[in-house]
Amino acid sequence: MKAVMIHAARDLRIADVAATAPGPGQVRVRIGAGGICGSDLHYYQHGGFGVIRLKEPMVLGHEVAGTVEALGEGVSHVAVGARVAVSPSLPCGVCRFCQRGLQQHCLDMRFYGSAMRFPHVHGAFREAVVCEAVQVHEVTGDVSLGEAAMAEPLAVCLHAARRAGPLLGARVLVTGSGPIGVLAAIAARRAGAAEIVVTDIANQPLAYARSAGADAALNTAAHPEVLDPYKADKGQFDVCLEASGNGHALRAALDVVRPGGVIVTLGLGGEVSLPLNTVVAKEIELRGTFRFHEEFGLAVRMISRKLVDVKPLISHTMAVDDALVAFELAGDRSQAMKVQLSF
Amino acid sequence: MKAVMIHAARDLRIADVAATAPGPGQVRVRIGAGGICGSDLHYYQHGGFGVIRLKEPMVLGHEVAGTVEALGEGVSHVAVGARVAVSPSLPCGVCRFCQRGLQQHCLDMRFYGSAMRFPHVHGAFREAVVCEAVQVHEVTGDVSLGEAAMAEPLAVCLHAARRAGPLLGARVLVTGSGPIGVLAAIAARRAGAAEIVVTDIANQPLAYARSAGADAALNTAAHPEVLDPYKADKGQFDVCLEASGNGHALRAALDVVRPGGVIVTLGLGGEVSLPLNTVVAKEIELRGTFRFHEEFGLAVRMISRKLVDVKPLISHTMAVDDALVAFELAGDRSQAMKVQLSF
Amino acid sequence: MKAVMIHAARDLRIADVAATAPGPGQVRVRIGAGGICGSDLHYYQHGGFGVIRLKEPMVLGHEVAGTVEALGEGVSHVAVGARVAVSPSLPCGVCRFCQRGLQQHCLDMRFYGSAMRFPHVHGAFREAVVCEAVQVHEVTGDVSLGEAAMAEPLAVCLHAARRAGPLLGARVLVTGSGPIGVLAAIAARRAGAAEIVVTDIANQPLAYARSAGADAALNTAAHPEVLDPYKADKGQFDVCLEASGNGHALRAALDVVRPGGVIVTLGLGGEVSLPLNTVVAKEIELRGTFRFHEEFGLAVRMISRKLVDVKPLISHTMAVDDALVAFELAGDRSQAMKVQLSF
Amino acid sequence: MKAVMIHAARDLRIADVAATAPGPGQVRVRIGAGGICGSDLHYYQHGGFGVIRLKEPMVLGHEVAGTVEALGEGVSHVAVGARVAVSPSLPCGVCRFCQRGLQQHCLDMRFYGSAMRFPHVHGAFREAVVCEAVQVHEVTGDVSLGEAAMAEPLAVCLHAARRAGPLLGARVLVTGSGPIGVLAAIAARRAGAAEIVVTDIANQPLAYARSAGADAALNTAAHPEVLDPYKADKGQFDVCLEASGNGHALRAALDVVRPGGVIVTLGLGGEVSLPLNTVVAKEIELRGTFRFHEEFGLAVRMISRKLVDVKPLISHTMAVDDALVAFELAGDRSQAMKVQLSF
Repeated sequence: MKAVMIHAARDLRIADVAATAPGPGQVRVRIGAGGICGSDLHYYQHGGFGVIRLKEPMVLGHEVAGTVEALGEGVSHVAVGARVAVSPSLPCGVCRFCQRGLQQHCLDMRFYGSAMRFPHVHGAFREAVVCEAVQVHEVTGDVSLGEAAMAEPLAVCLHAARRAGPLLGARVLVTGSGPIGVLAAIAARRAGAAEIVVTDIANQPLAYARSAGADAALNTAAHPEVLDPYKADKGQFDVCLEASGNGHALRAALDVVRPGGVIVTLGLGGEVSLPLNTVVAKEIELRGTFRFHEEFGLAVRMISRKLVDVKPLISHTMAVDDALVAFELAGDRSQAMKVQLSF
Repeated sequence: MKAVMIHAARDLRIADVAATAPGPGQVRVRIGAGGICGSDLHYYQHGGFGVIRLKEPMVLGHEVAGTVEALGEGVSHVAVGARVAVSPSLPCGVCRFCQRGLQQHCLDMRFYGSAMRFPHVHGAFREAVVCEAVQVHEVTGDVSLGEAAMAEPLAVCLHAARRAGPLLGARVLVTGSGPIGVLAAIAARRAGAAEIVVTDIANQPLAYARSAGADAALNTAAHPEVLDPYKADKGQFDVCLEASGNGHALRAALDVVRPGGVIVTLGLGGEVSLPLNTVVAKEIELRGTFRFHEEFGLAVRMISRKLVDVKPLISHTMAVDDALVAFELAGDRSQAMKVQLSF
Repeated sequence: MKAVMIHAARDLRIADVAATAPGPGQVRVRIGAGGICGSDLHYYQHGGFGVIRLKEPMVLGHEVAGTVEALGEGVSHVAVGARVAVSPSLPCGVCRFCQRGLQQHCLDMRFYGSAMRFPHVHGAFREAVVCEAVQVHEVTGDVSLGEAAMAEPLAVCLHAARRAGPLLGARVLVTGSGPIGVLAAIAARRAGAAEIVVTDIANQPLAYARSAGADAALNTAAHPEVLDPYKADKGQFDVCLEASGNGHALRAALDVVRPGGVIVTLGLGGEVSLPLNTVVAKEIELRGTFRFHEEFGLAVRMISRKLVDVKPLISHTMAVDDALVAFELAGDRSQAMKVQLSF
Repeated sequence: MKAVMIHAARDLRIADVAATAPGPGQVRVRIGAGGICGSDLHYYQHGGFGVIRLKEPMVLGHEVAGTVEALGEGVSHVAVGARVAVSPSLPCGVCRFCQRGLQQHCLDMRFYGSAMRFPHVHGAFREAVVCEAVQVHEVTGDVSLGEAAMAEPLAVCLHAARRAGPLLGARVLVTGSGPIGVLAAIAARRAGAAEIVVTDIANQPLAYARSAGADAALNTAAHPEVLDPYKADKGQFDVCLEASGNGHALRAALDVVRPGGVIVTLGLGGEVSLPLNTVVAKEIELRGTFRFHEEFGLAVRMISRKLVDVKPLISHTMAVDDALVAFELAGDRSQAMKVQLSF
């Protein structure tokens, strides 16, 4: 069966991989839709990121949804034919972090389409995937598999919103208007943010932020002073969700977040230089956020019950055979928001 | 009456300033002891720090204790003759931060011996100071005025310990073993830390950390690998109290604090370059901490009731007439921990 | 001008009170709409509640909105003609609770239409009210004064939702489907609750809960076992918002809230007998919630920006001259949800 | 080998039970000391408590320490001969509570000397016990096995202190001066409480509270008004640790805890009638606390490192053959604080 496999930077191939039957406690899911994520793009464009490098060909993909095709022994929480989203994350359950409810920091994590371990853990851009029962979450209600495949990036953003602390009534700045930034804005609104301002350095992504309900979507490249009014009285935002991975955005946030405010960093930027005295004098809290755990199931429920609307973010859907074109498109912010493959 | 006045970098003089009577709601305190703080040293060595520069001569000093000499109309919570510590901090009480219990971020703060405002707010290194009644906290029990004058830096550290969240049972790293670092270790122990490791790049300060009860006091310059065992399993410390203001210390902390752990930065370092991806992937929380509010009264009570012992940190006490020598000494970490002036 | 004045239980009169001009820092507001609250009803039906009793005639009413009619000296944040909601709450700003951001516990609180102080603080069921500038919050957008007058009970519920802690993704039980219960459900949904179940002992109020978006609205009198499935595995709800003031509802909640879950009690019930061993063994947190402070302005913004929809709850609007009929109606749960007076 | 077995209320016998060898992953510990707990007493005096009743003879005891006698296959974290405290708690590790770090609410918990399950889980009042490796915590430093056996009730109180939230600088009331009350006071002091007041209705227990460092130890039976000064300004205590299980103590606490304060209930009292309106109007938080999880290891470390001193609480140590006398003594508050058996 077909799979989208990365061999090296710029060397993406449609491979033929063997189909397997689900073992006890497993489920085979026929994949319907799979979204291309920033980390997929990193493997495609650079062959990895930071110290994590491809050492062997790897199937990409970790934002997928499909239909249950076969059940292994002992699986009963879903039925054959059910529409499901598949979590790419499989923590060990027994390490000290798993036992503290911090499964995203599992010491023995398996995560789809990641070269952190060797052999690498293959991803889910393939016609069918066999996974553990706990990875499979049923999608209910009148939503498409494409929407269901948005559960993974939404889970990232729901987790980030939780990391921010209570948001009911908060004034929130989101820096970076890519898929994660806009989903973070959607999560913040769902969590009760009273005012949401999204920034980016390009206009096209900001249009998506506006359509997703941002109160303002501002181009900080075209209008460098556009955030100045928010500097008043030591800063006006209670929370910043930093989704650009860009050091300039983070620095700018320090000036407009109020004393005692929180900056949650979602972006895996590298070295960033910060004016630490501002962090100190304003008692700002800078909190990293990484992946998710129980938020995956929550994301599926929220999409299923239409408590959030992720559909407007799916800018393109392309057949798996056009994966190469799709990856190129996904890297072009002037055109694409979320590009999904259909299988 | 005598006062210790800074005119410019390296230009410290014993000045003669007028004595005044306390107005309504005020108290006149005859100063007995005053500790030289890092910011006093900054004015002496550099004429300010960052964008804050001396624009006129200013009396230094904000760590003081003394004896009540006279009461203005309407003051009754202390009596003439009472021994008191004087808080250097006078927030406005009405701005949006004061009304939220964040008085340390007051939009109209007056703080002793600070050039942030112009005219500058004079400090308390003088034979007597007239202050507002709320600044005056009675010292009880068998403690010296020198110990009482430690209330201010202790308050900074109690506030920092609170910023860290609950410490009962925590494994705590303190980076930087100056007066603030050692007081932070004392505060962390008082708050229930189960294990405290202090680091510095010099041996003399580390000896003070040991005498203050640190479980280990490690020289990271002499033994760069000394923290390596704490990197195991993604990091072993729950909390780091960063009191060195040094970027290297902060970077090192990122590797030994566990996922989900907290780094509280007390030091007013300037630009610091950080590997943001570590903050993200380990979901570390980096929290600034700034001054204190209600912790000043708490510090006085804790010193008075001997719930903490700050005496071992007072390395030198010198007469006010020797202020110049005292300031030079205070800047020499190979000799001095806390240098106090006596009046 | 006309005012709705309570003299004793069942003795409500339309009185003629003098109109006054706003002093410095004050605003005169022509009242447009005023909602009858449970405490208004208590004064009408019982002459007070608990130890709080009427000792002199008092104007009722604390859920009001209107139009700015005149400004006292120095007021500039609203203009004459602006549509505003008026907060009934005026904390002193200087007591130890006000200075900690706990203004709802002010030691010298003035609250409209409350007999807690003597002389009583008159309420705002009158043709015009002169209030302090800080009490006045401008209403923007296309909402009616009736909707704006819902800001006060909504503020109570936003505060209660905050007391519950983060609700993003929570399973929430609301016991009691009166105006406060339904507004609590609305606040919980706005704060991100994933599932909301509302209970009551009457069907009519439950219909309002359903129209406000509850996932289920259950009659526990008609079907005493209806909550049994939620007892599974020590309890299924993360949070209960108890808005009935009824001991039976609270006891029932203890069985369906999960270990470590939170019960926020909004209802001013009197003596309640609880199985304390359940609270202990399940480590349940029972949290009182009382009034609001900054949530009033937040409620006005949320209504103005249509982040919540309170309109369906306004079941009846009656002229002030029919106040007596309106009060009788407000006490009849089979007919009324929120009854408002128009002026 | 000898074991202390309860057959029914007032029917306690020294039984002879078989010794077994440790299996893989297990440890055999020769018991040295075992403390008699309130729940042991309940089984002895009443044959159970609440709905939990003895259905078969059961070995009592869950506060024990001893010496490692034999290791099963694969156990390496302790050596034969090591002195250890044994946790009575063995959560399943896989249920939804274990995976959230709430192991004390495990859906399949095994706890020593508890009749909650059937067959009952036998306790550790026996000459030797075979337990899982994770239950065994090494005791270091110069402390007795009697002190080490205090780890279990100390763990309960460390957990309770954590449930209270940060205690650094807090004013704390402890109601009930039995072993749990006094250990709660010790835990609160270790966590940074600035002032601790303990109450009881008998003088003898209060003497222990005083010796453990309480600032005041007050007899509320002899002097019913003794807490009145703490009612000032809506209440003076930030936190109450309720360790009496008595409804009167809890009611009294409501009047002296400040608005927004916390009452942690440790005592498994049954039905208690509360003035809910006080809970609401003062926004008090009533939090149950139950057992412990990671606090057991913490308790062992704190005792080992002498960060707490539990020795003064051990009022009597008696040979296992005198168990019956020891149980009678343990029930006599005029004589005993903690009674331990030696094996």
